Amino acid sequence: MTKIDKISPLAPKSLPAFPEIDGVLLSTAATEMKYKGRDDLLCVAFPQGATVAGVLTQSRTFSAPVGLCRDNLATGKKARALLVNAGNANAFTGKAGDQAMASSVKMLADKIGCDRDQVYVSSTGVIGEVLDADLINGHMTNIVGELSAQNWPAAAKAILTTDTFAKGAARTVKLNGTVVKINGIAKGSGMIAPDMATMLAYVFTDADLSQDVLQAILVDTVDKSFNAITVDSDTSTSDTLLAFATGASGVGGDITDPHDPALTEFRAVFEELLRDLAHQVVRDGEGATKFITITVTGAEDARAAKVIALSIANSPLVKTAIAGEDANWGRIVMAVGKAGEAADRDKLKIIIGGQKVTELGMAVQGYDEDICTKHLKGQNIDLAIDVGIAQGEATVWTCDLTHGYIEINADYRS
Amino acid sequence: MTKIDKISPLAPKSLPAFPEIDGVLLSTAATEMKYKGRDDLLCVAFPQGATVAGVLTQSRTFSAPVGLCRDNLATGKKARALLVNAGNANAFTGKAGDQAMASSVKMLADKIGCDRDQVYVSSTGVIGEVLDADLINGHMTNIVGELSAQNWPAAAKAILTTDTFAKGAARTVKLNGTVVKINGIAKGSGMIAPDMATMLAYVFTDADLSQDVLQAILVDTVDKSFNAITVDSDTSTSDTLLAFATGASGVGGDITDPHDPALTEFRAVFEELLRDLAHQVVRDGEGATKFITITVTGAEDARAAKVIALSIANSPLVKTAIAGEDANWGRIVMAVGKAGEAADRDKLKIIIGGQKVTELGMAVQGYDEDICTKHLKGQNIDLAIDVGIAQGEATVWTCDLTHGYIEINADYRS
Repeated sequence: MTKIDKISPLAPKSLPAFPEIDGVLLSTAATEMKYKGRDDLLCVAFPQGATVAGVLTQSRTFSAPVGLCRDNLATGKKARALLVNAGNANAFTGKAGDQAMASSVKMLADKIGCDRDQVYVSSTGVIGEVLDADLINGHMTNIVGELSAQNWPAAAKAILTTDTFAKGAARTVKLNGTVVKINGIAKGSGMIAPDMATMLAYVFTDADLSQDVLQAILVDTVDKSFNAITVDSDTSTSDTLLAFATGASGVGGDITDPHDPALTEFRAVFEELLRDLAHQVVRDGEGATKFITITVTGAEDARAAKVIALSIANSPLVKTAIAGEDANWGRIVMAVGKAGEAADRDKLKIIIGGQKVTELGMAVQGYDEDICTKHLKGQNIDLAIDVGIAQGEATVWTCDLTHGYIEINADYRS
Repeated sequence: MTKIDKISPLAPKSLPAFPEIDGVLLSTAATEMKYKGRDDLLCVAFPQGATVAGVLTQSRTFSAPVGLCRDNLATGKKARALLVNAGNANAFTGKAGDQAMASSVKMLADKIGCDRDQVYVSSTGVIGEVLDADLINGHMTNIVGELSAQNWPAAAKAILTTDTFAKGAARTVKLNGTVVKINGIAKGSGMIAPDMATMLAYVFTDADLSQDVLQAILVDTVDKSFNAITVDSDTSTSDTLLAFATGASGVGGDITDPHDPALTEFRAVFEELLRDLAHQVVRDGEGATKFITITVTGAEDARAAKVIALSIANSPLVKTAIAGEDANWGRIVMAVGKAGEAADRDKLKIIIGGQKVTELGMAVQGYDEDICTKHLKGQNIDLAIDVGIAQGEATVWTCDLTHGYIEINADYRS
């Protein structure tokens, strides 16, 4: 059913070495609600609490856990726990879904001794099947008893669904002269489109940041990371990105302005970590064989550049041409044209793998298609497009569209 | 290269019997610019002239012929000829492309004795390769010499590219008590998305309609036909729909208001013919094995309903689930959610093949998935979705996404 046995050719060699982060404890368990022989339930606890920021799906049919996260974020209270299950999204499950979630939240809050609205929840998997809370609740005693600071790789694995590899990233950065840590894990492979947080991703730091500062950093950096990727243009009902700051490092608590220069380095590393995770999601795109970077310049503004870049990234004809290693750049022209944003047909420039193929509204005289074809035979494809209007720029990342995508999705549930 | 040998399983049995239409002469020729052993050039002449209306691609990178049609339409002059070649789109070919087109236009205008801006042109095929006008112009004497009123089937075939069958429709309807005829031909298979005229389609009638009346009818009816279909969400640089009225029937010339009740029956039949042609394009969608009708009701307005319907129709996950005959309606929920239009998650109703599968924000109690699965095993799939907000309605048509689409498009040019 899932294809975890067949690892994406674009996968990184391994998970990074995760350092422990003071104030973060993790444990996993196997509910077997869908996947057999692997852990599919993750519990993260913050014994001293953690400030929390989040970006959630813009879907109008968001899941029960997305609604809960949104409500909890609005309270401004510190988070005490995060509970994630894989295999059932608890989306479009009506009141029964709400009740199942509430029963697990109550049990976990009671066990660790916190308010219910300090427990965050995510569910990922099939939409529309009511979640059997007993399968989760039966593991609650064990999962709380086994919380440990070292369980990062197990955590990264427990949240996967159709993913073919576990996704994680770890960084350290100086804040006010003290080293702070940032760890992140993510899952996602299909139903990946931007303009929101995408799929599930969790970032943890021991920096001492207020909710407002953390939220501002998250919103700024998500735009150039998770919100700049697409696999298949489809948007999940469960997309959730949460960032937790335990404050255990003792630094950052005096910062009130998210644009304080003291945060410059932290923001840069935080963004780089989010982008790393986002790229791993693209590299696990269902059926992907190529990692594609699309940079659009010369657009009316950054927004227009992103619309054009996503029009290219979501075009089935561009994605299949790249899968076929065919330098059919006419399809890029088509995708620029359909984006609806200003573009000067007679100034449009297309550069494939560093080689300029079009200029002045037509193919470059003497352009050597073999050089393009050679680039397209590689795993990392670079497309650069200048639309000749103004200075707007954007970069997005995607993967190709192959038989693998059809295989995985024409029979996902059975 | 093209797969004309393998006819779509959704193809109609045959082309209709086309009656002659007074004032319309047709002929075809084989330039062999790309396709061997078949005609790929169509000339249509209107010896007494024809009023002409058109809807053209909204692409910002439109082809040279699209620009020419737009300019000609603006003159308000009667059309005297239409020239269509298949195999090269003459799109993104800069000044060289403009010159190639101009040389053919001049030659044809001289041969039939009309102004150059009375000659309409369409080109379809690969984008970005300069058109060799000599290959067309060398056939100009013959093609003009062989014009005949009977060549409809040959005309429908000459304009095809990756299509697996020729597309045509013919109707008669009474106008002011006199029978008038409407014939139409179309081509299109991939790079099919709405919100514009789609692909190439030409409609001919002997009704005597002014350009203003014909244009108004065309714009009204295209919205529920060609602008309500999608194969792959990709929009062609060459999309062209032209309607020609020779007036040879002698009826209709007194009508100045496109909403004149005398036109009611004509409009209905005209729209039905356009929809027939549009459905044939979907039935030849690259790799298609299912013809899918998606009706959305209960939306804020008709525009919102169409946005939601197209979000479902363009979702790769919905299209692959249908290809896999999998009643995974959670993906429909997802596609409604990502459309960005108002939808009440807890009132959303989904009906597959007449069976209600969701209600009140969750699966219907006791719903029988086997009935859905049986419906999905057929060739004609009906999805009805009520989003529970207001009265807006729309219907769109699409096909499934299969290995065939990847096969055709991962190596189209080679």
